[in-house]
Amino acid sequence: MRITVYLTDNRPEPWVESLRAELPDADITAWTPGAPMADHAVVWAPPQSFLDEQRQLRGMFNIGAGVDALFKLRLPPQTRIVRLDDAGMSVQMAEYVCHALIRHFREFDVYEADAREGRWSYRRPRLRSDFPVGVMGLGVLGERVGKAIAQFEFPVMGWSRTPKRIDGIQCFAGDEGFDDFLAASRMLVCLLPLTVETRGILRREHLLKLNGGKPGGYIVNVARGAHLVDGDLIPLLDADQLAGATLDVFTDEPLAPEHPFWRHPKITVTPHASARTLREESVAQIAAKIRALEAGASFDTLPGVVDAGRGY
Amino acid sequence: MRITVYLTDNRPEPWVESLRAELPDADITAWTPGAPMADHAVVWAPPQSFLDEQRQLRGMFNIGAGVDALFKLRLPPQTRIVRLDDAGMSVQMAEYVCHALIRHFREFDVYEADAREGRWSYRRPRLRSDFPVGVMGLGVLGERVGKAIAQFEFPVMGWSRTPKRIDGIQCFAGDEGFDDFLAASRMLVCLLPLTVETRGILRREHLLKLNGGKPGGYIVNVARGAHLVDGDLIPLLDADQLAGATLDVFTDEPLAPEHPFWRHPKITVTPHASARTLREESVAQIAAKIRALEAGASFDTLPGVVDAGRGY
Repeated sequence: MRITVYLTDNRPEPWVESLRAELPDADITAWTPGAPMADHAVVWAPPQSFLDEQRQLRGMFNIGAGVDALFKLRLPPQTRIVRLDDAGMSVQMAEYVCHALIRHFREFDVYEADAREGRWSYRRPRLRSDFPVGVMGLGVLGERVGKAIAQFEFPVMGWSRTPKRIDGIQCFAGDEGFDDFLAASRMLVCLLPLTVETRGILRREHLLKLNGGKPGGYIVNVARGAHLVDGDLIPLLDADQLAGATLDVFTDEPLAPEHPFWRHPKITVTPHASARTLREESVAQIAAKIRALEAGASFDTLPGVVDAGRGY
Repeated sequence: MRITVYLTDNRPEPWVESLRAELPDADITAWTPGAPMADHAVVWAPPQSFLDEQRQLRGMFNIGAGVDALFKLRLPPQTRIVRLDDAGMSVQMAEYVCHALIRHFREFDVYEADAREGRWSYRRPRLRSDFPVGVMGLGVLGERVGKAIAQFEFPVMGWSRTPKRIDGIQCFAGDEGFDDFLAASRMLVCLLPLTVETRGILRREHLLKLNGGKPGGYIVNVARGAHLVDGDLIPLLDADQLAGATLDVFTDEPLAPEHPFWRHPKITVTPHASARTLREESVAQIAAKIRALEAGASFDTLPGVVDAGRGY
């Protein structure tokens, strides 16, 4: 079995070595132009030229949970895409989102500003019943994040394409549940896959429906930058309709130094750091899936195999 | 039954009204000098003069979890002290501590400093196995905090006066377990009651034992300011032996504007805001205990009754 590795913006060698340790019988190399045809590829953001050469791939294992970048390419028809499911990312997402929500709810950012002035301030405690959280996307990551938030006794809503039942999360589904979900949510967390349907879902028309239409909504975007209509956010913040936003992902990354998000007082920017791909966990997961396939399993039985029709 | 209410630094009237709603048959008033003898008192930081008049009190219900301030007074010998147990505080403590630990572990403070410069930075992910958390004090608050941290997959140690067993927390106890507990902990959370034994427990000699004696320890103090030896902290931070501290409580509160803690780059100060007493929850809890006593229960059966010998 031959496995080729292609990583844009990162060195492939450590991944090749880790995969070799997990799959000692396989022939694993970093891709070079004209390389022999491989059975599987382990990739991050490969270019079209890579796929134009490697037309016989059976499996393409994406080093990440989001596969939207691959669907911009012309894929060989028989190649199946497999994304990471969890692999150490869900706990990071739970940490990131809980930190952002607690910081906003408890006004720790305001206390820090007061502390810089040496000011011992009193702020009236807020009721967590006034700060219901809505989680968009209820896959492995969304469910973990929702449960982590529920532990802090916030009311938690969830919204997904198809109906789900999750303990401790009030679930809404599909177009017909979307407006009720938005109205019931004050702090909104986006963990959706980026698809034709979800692109631009964080736009003025929808953001105005948060918190029953009242001011005070708060956005956390840890999915993809293109979920947010950039131009809609700042006017809603400046009009005090939205109270703030924590953004980890952007339409163009890295975010340009002159972008107004960086210095807006109600926006917290992080550099796509909410959930790093962890090499050890990811390689172990990918190797386990390849071993299962080699032992005769079908792609359709593997977690994280992408449905090309729905796009995730 | 007569209940008197004495609150320093706060208006007693809302508490009187809430208690009346819960205990309609009782005679409940805010204390005034020369007031009739009461059966119970609901207090926050009363002066000696209050106790010198109200010498017949059976129960003194403290609006808070820490009762160290009451033990500075000469108490009538038959008066039993009852502290709040939880009453909405444990979830706030869990929030506060998780926010502080995640912020340090994930370096969100560093990302924020980079963001102020418009800098898209990359920081290598840290391993949570390198950041074990030690929780000092395993009462209602410490157990809740420890479990909340464990949810984020940090190794969690706990230390208490008497041995405990708690799922997901490696428990140490007493003087004989203290050094091992410190060595196994990198981030240290203080939730101890303030007693003769625990005063100054966060001192140089002990702080040097954190993290197996290696640099990198981090302190979160949400108990009482007098647990920390103020003069020991800054030299350890400046020598890079400790990585940082988040402090909510101080020997003298409010913290004086000129105190060096405010502006030290490795110290985060909050104004005793980690867990506010919530009137509604507290009054419901106190009223339930008074009803139980009036129905014939003994003080020794009530949660939160203070053992004068151990001081909490």
